Formats: sequence, C-alpha cells, structure tokens
Amino acid sequence: MVILGIDPGIAIMGYGIISYVGNRFNVIHYGAITTSSKMDTAERLKKIYQDLNDLIIQYNPEAIAIEELFFNTNVKTALLVGHARGVAVLAAANNNKELYEYTPLQVKQGVVGYGRAEKKQVQQMIKTILNLEKVPKPDDVADALAVAVCHAHSGNFKDLFKLK
Amino acid sequence: MVILGIDPGIAIMGYGIISYVGNRFNVIHYGAITTSSKMDTAERLKKIYQDLNDLIIQYNPEAIAIEELFFNTNVKTALLVGHARGVAVLAAANNNKELYEYTPLQVKQGVVGYGRAEKKQVQQMIKTILNLEKVPKPDDVADALAVAVCHAHSGNFKDLFKLK
Repeated sequence: MVILGIDPGIAIMGYGIISYVGNRFNVIHYGAITTSSKMDTAERLKKIYQDLNDLIIQYNPEAIAIEELFFNTNVKTALLVGHARGVAVLAAANNNKELYEYTPLQVKQGVVGYGRAEKKQVQQMIKTILNLEKVPKPDDVADALAVAVCHAHSGNFKDLFKLK
Repeated sequence: MVILGIDPGIAIMGYGIISYVGNRFNVIHYGAITTSSKMDTAERLKKIYQDLNDLIIQYNPEAIAIEELFFNTNVKTALLVGHARGVAVLAAANNNKELYEYTPLQVKQGVVGYGRAEKKQVQQMIKTILNLEKVPKPDDVADALAVAVCHAHSGNFKDLFKLK
C-alpha cells in the first residue's frame, strides 16, 4: 500500500510518500511544498494545489493521511492555514482519493505507541522505521512521514480515521 | 464590468453576479452553493469548487470580490470556514481571475457609505441599487451581492483591495 502523508501549512506543506507491504516500510519520496509570504494568497494556494495534484498523479497513493490541526491561540492563523488545508483536501477529493486524518496525539500514539511522546522521539522513530540516514528537515517533512506511518499502523481501525 | 461577489462559507456560500456599466447596475444571477453537514468535508469542498468553477466559466466575470472573514470566538469554525474560503480563492486563481477582498466594515462603507450601517440598511440598499423586488434570501446571498456592489463602488481605489 502506498500512502501519502501530509502536514498542512501555507508556508511549508510537508509531504511523505511511503509504501507499506507485509509490515515492511519503504520510503518513496518526501519533501515540502513551500510558498513565500511575498506571494499573494491566491498564488500560494494555486501552487500548493498544483504541486500536490502532480504528486498524487505521479505516485498514485492508495490512501492520503493528513494531520488534523489544532490552534489554541491565533484565529487569523487558523483561518489562513485552513485555506491551505482546504486546498490539500480538495486535491485529494478531485483525484477520488480516500482521505484520513489524525490528530497530533493520534500520530504520536500510532508511531511511538505513546500519545505523550516528545517530538524528538517521534522523529527518531521515523528515522529508524523508515531506515533513513538522518531525520528529514524541516520538521514539517518528518511530520508528514509520521502521519503516513501512523496511517499504516492504524490497520483494521482505518475507517475510524476517515475524514468526515 | 461583470463582477462576481462571494460570501464564503462551508454550509452556504452565497454568490452574486452583477454588471456595472456607466454607473448603472444590472443583476445577472445570484444564489447559494449549499452543502450538508452530513457530507464529508472533502465532498463539500469538491462541490463548492466545482460549482464556483462552473459559475466563473459560465459568467466570465472581470473581477471577483470576496468577503474577508473575522472570527472572535471559535477557532475550530475559523479553520473549517478557512477550508471553504481557500477553495473559493483557488477557483478564482485557477481561472486566472483577479481577486479582491473586503472586510464587513468596508462592504458597509462601500454600499451604504457608512461603516456602522446595520445589516438591514445594507440589504435595503442592495434591493434599491439592484432594482430587486425583495431582499434576496438567505442573508449570505444578499451579502455576496453587497460585496460585488462594494467592489463596483471602489472605483480608482480597487488596487487597495487586491487579495495579498
């Protein structure tokens, strides 16, 4: 099963594409779609949509897993990041892909087995599981790989995490 | 000049298409794209994008004016409405349309000439300016027409309101 994991953001949208066959992981591709705050919002969203759409077509993942976002501070930030995440969800929907979402807590649980794991523990686990030489940078890329691994680990419980 | 006004929302996205030639307004079409909360978010965004894309292609507006959103309460709502607004902005960008945004205060200013005008005053003014028999319902449709009228009235100051 090929899984695309996405850590949504407007300036940096991390992505990671992995395969998971018979309990074995392989990394296919990972990186980040970046947009500058000097671009206008429409151009940023257009770039995010196009790049994500190209990735989906090229790697044809069976499932797309996206991190659910929480903000306890800034409503303005939430609104802007909501724009970017909306465009990512649309790219999945327009390619008729099933979409799953995981909260940060669920990602920690799914990767490390412990919901209160530290960010560093999650990153080390990703490096180990995926047999990488080092932790991918920026954090958004490691987070995208983590949500993909989390989805692979959700096994028979996948349907619980379908985007509603 | 044909203007498409949009009042963004996830359950109801109001739209209004007007023409403004030599200080005269004509209403071309208005309505709302609605999605049920029983649909999943991906399907809702897909419908909003498609319907809006169809409207843009059919009516080929010279400008698209969208209301800027403010929330002082619920971050979760802001995030979800951000998804819908992001998809609307993408539909404009993918059709290479210039996009303008106006705050609710600017819409009142632009329509009634008074930033503290009541909602009812704005609606009555829309009815009068656009020569409608009654105020369009739901409010989201009247709001979409209002942002379109506001854009028509912005005259030489349009560039101030370009979406950044």
